[in-house]
Amino acid sequence: MTRTIDINSDLGEAYGPWPMGDDAAMLDIVTSANVACGGHASDPETMYRTLVMCREKGVTAGAHPGYADREGFGRRVIPMKPAEITNMVAAQIGALRGIATLANCPVTYVKPHGALNNFASANREAADAIAVAVKASGLAMLAISGTELEKASRAAGIETISEIFADRGYQENGLLVPRSEPGAMIHDPQAAAERILHLLKTGKMQTVSGAEIPLAAQSICVHGDEASAVALAAELRARLESEGVSITAFA
Amino acid sequence: MTRTIDINSDLGEAYGPWPMGDDAAMLDIVTSANVACGGHASDPETMYRTLVMCREKGVTAGAHPGYADREGFGRRVIPMKPAEITNMVAAQIGALRGIATLANCPVTYVKPHGALNNFASANREAADAIAVAVKASGLAMLAISGTELEKASRAAGIETISEIFADRGYQENGLLVPRSEPGAMIHDPQAAAERILHLLKTGKMQTVSGAEIPLAAQSICVHGDEASAVALAAELRARLESEGVSITAFA
Amino acid sequence: MTRTIDINSDLGEAYGPWPMGDDAAMLDIVTSANVACGGHASDPETMYRTLVMCREKGVTAGAHPGYADREGFGRRVIPMKPAEITNMVAAQIGALRGIATLANCPVTYVKPHGALNNFASANREAADAIAVAVKASGLAMLAISGTELEKASRAAGIETISEIFADRGYQENGLLVPRSEPGAMIHDPQAAAERILHLLKTGKMQTVSGAEIPLAAQSICVHGDEASAVALAAELRARLESEGVSITAFA
Amino acid sequence: MTRTIDINSDLGEAYGPWPMGDDAAMLDIVTSANVACGGHASDPETMYRTLVMCREKGVTAGAHPGYADREGFGRRVIPMKPAEITNMVAAQIGALRGIATLANCPVTYVKPHGALNNFASANREAADAIAVAVKASGLAMLAISGTELEKASRAAGIETISEIFADRGYQENGLLVPRSEPGAMIHDPQAAAERILHLLKTGKMQTVSGAEIPLAAQSICVHGDEASAVALAAELRARLESEGVSITAFA
Repeated sequence: MTRTIDINSDLGEAYGPWPMGDDAAMLDIVTSANVACGGHASDPETMYRTLVMCREKGVTAGAHPGYADREGFGRRVIPMKPAEITNMVAAQIGALRGIATLANCPVTYVKPHGALNNFASANREAADAIAVAVKASGLAMLAISGTELEKASRAAGIETISEIFADRGYQENGLLVPRSEPGAMIHDPQAAAERILHLLKTGKMQTVSGAEIPLAAQSICVHGDEASAVALAAELRARLESEGVSITAFA
Repeated sequence: MTRTIDINSDLGEAYGPWPMGDDAAMLDIVTSANVACGGHASDPETMYRTLVMCREKGVTAGAHPGYADREGFGRRVIPMKPAEITNMVAAQIGALRGIATLANCPVTYVKPHGALNNFASANREAADAIAVAVKASGLAMLAISGTELEKASRAAGIETISEIFADRGYQENGLLVPRSEPGAMIHDPQAAAERILHLLKTGKMQTVSGAEIPLAAQSICVHGDEASAVALAAELRARLESEGVSITAFA
Repeated sequence: MTRTIDINSDLGEAYGPWPMGDDAAMLDIVTSANVACGGHASDPETMYRTLVMCREKGVTAGAHPGYADREGFGRRVIPMKPAEITNMVAAQIGALRGIATLANCPVTYVKPHGALNNFASANREAADAIAVAVKASGLAMLAISGTELEKASRAAGIETISEIFADRGYQENGLLVPRSEPGAMIHDPQAAAERILHLLKTGKMQTVSGAEIPLAAQSICVHGDEASAVALAAELRARLESEGVSITAFA
Repeated sequence: MTRTIDINSDLGEAYGPWPMGDDAAMLDIVTSANVACGGHASDPETMYRTLVMCREKGVTAGAHPGYADREGFGRRVIPMKPAEITNMVAAQIGALRGIATLANCPVTYVKPHGALNNFASANREAADAIAVAVKASGLAMLAISGTELEKASRAAGIETISEIFADRGYQENGLLVPRSEPGAMIHDPQAAAERILHLLKTGKMQTVSGAEIPLAAQSICVHGDEASAVALAAELRARLESEGVSITAFA
């Protein structure tokens, strides 16, 4: 049985006067923080504040680049050529690393945000474009298990960590159940924890059909921008630890 | 006599569909390019394109951070706390370096842009704030000769290059003649070149009063965003070279 | 004794995914809503949503233009020429009115936001620049009592409403006590209400020195973007009504 | 034979320090100016300057709203719900009209820009969303002849003007030849003028296949942001006038 796993969350997504989520509370639970880079969210002050908290709380920091679309919070696919995606991702990673030097908190991996992540999960060309930027950065990639982005990342020789979602239903093909369909969300923290424990014990994910599929998992993604997110994440972590699972950053 | 000097210019200041200046022509003349970083101007595509040109033409690339105010082109002082300036500058330097890895063109120095540069030239607190970011970056600083920024940079132990303006009049206190006063601009390239040659020979800058003042000068700034800029820069370079001055990057 | 007064608050200051304050609760208390116009805050969706709520709750809507500086939330003075201020204010008023037609909720007045309001309160040139835009719009102006903006507005022939602050201390010269000095803030809703009642009865504002000054007041500003804002506003309104003051929109 | 037609062009597309096209020259040729509204391009200063020029040169001004995507210049489809499109278009129309009051130049029609226009030309839902905003504004619509936007506009009871392109090839189904295919562009001003004259005489447009199709045309679109645009537009206008066609604004 896998006895060690990472928990990651999207953080540092405030902007100017506008807060987003309870970063301080989430940083007491997660072991890896995907920190927004000024594209879909954040600004230099927010990046600095978030990275300082990561260092103080011993949380591993990653870059969380997204479409440069604040109004849409990076949740809309902006049509871009592959080279444009590469440049955008490289600039955002660089911006965060520029701040990281000041905050004395190294950035060790990259996880794309929102629509960019979803698009690259299914589109190999976009996935390769992101991989070019991450490869050049020398950082690791945190990719959704089973996606084109994961494949592109491994093909590029990037150290790649596979993540699963604690609160989302899976289909037999390894993809998430669309939000519009039954079983898309798992709201019960205990049920979410049981499914994860099963995966850690067997290497197999229970799908909505009842069938089980093999799925690599070095990290569990929990969300930080909803009211109930902190409670869910805390319960998940406590349940895993009570079963003897060590929650440890992958990096 | 100083027989070697650098010529620098602000470049890469296009944005999205909007061009700015003739970067390709200027990069045939200058030896150092201050490349905008997505704050007052530029975007990831423009940064990449500009850095590739720098590499191809053998021009040294520097980061050119400015107030994040595109509409004002970084020419308006935005009220910011010192820590905010530090973070902003660090993020912009980082963004350019993120692209520089892709473009295979190292960034070796930092020169602040427009109102940020002018403000920090006279305000030691802002100068120190910029110096903190540049020190953390490990890059050199290109500062206007005789300013608070130059002093702050040297005090921080940063490798500091002093620049002068070929086309601007100087006062006896070492500051530029304000644009609203007579003698602010030198429009004749020959006159501009003669003054520079005099400085290189004697170490003294001729001021508008006729008096001469000592002024350090390892680089000459020429501007790239006006129609006549390329012709002026080309004539200046030719005149200096005809007098046996070698135009070479400082870095 | 004045038996009728308006209560106004800055609302509609969300942006994209980021909320700001509890607009629905505040709109149950205030009689006039200063609605952000996409400059310092807001976006077309937020404007529409806010104006629909104004209509449904019977609250008068005003335009709340500010410096186009989201990161600084319009709280930083951006150096602008008077004509630039005029154009900026006119464009923001227009944007809100464009949405107002859709929302079937008329916009009847203008109150500048944050640093723009503060700057124009003390600077007649900026005040005149705002007045030009408001005059052209045909709307009324809500200005801080005793300021240059109030004077410029009346001089321009604009219907002008004078506002006071329930929770801010006043100096004998009619200006607010700076936030850095004792007496700047009144945190006790009862004390705030008593001072307002005294003003309504006597026409005189109690200042921090104990002296009283005459001050015009057709509207009371309460703030909406702090956690305690709703409770304070509700208590103020209840106290005034219990004394027989009618809380009614000026427009 | 139709003896009167309008010529329109996209103008006012500068932004901050960045110019775009030669608006002054184009305004001597066209009779209707589609003025950018601060979405894909422009800012309050540019809007004001452009509208003043329209008034001085006697050119009819229209609003030219586009996706709020400056980096992509409104040429990328941003995924938006219909209600979001309606609000965005209404806010942009309003912003321009706010400035128009200052510039003393009425705005009389709306023509969507770039990707928004193209998307709504083929997508009735988006077309209807735009029509809702234009209907509420009380302005006319300038739509590409034969498109869903034209149909939606007429169905909404909006005064609708049909435009054709002087320099683009047409297919038998009334749609433009895609830019990637032969015959997409007509570069010869004489050939472009002959085709327009044929259309005005017969009501039929010559397509790339040789077949002719009926096509409504009250306005001809010429482009303003390319180097050769002014010359082409001038030649087209001269040729039409020499054939006795009167170039007159539709509004």
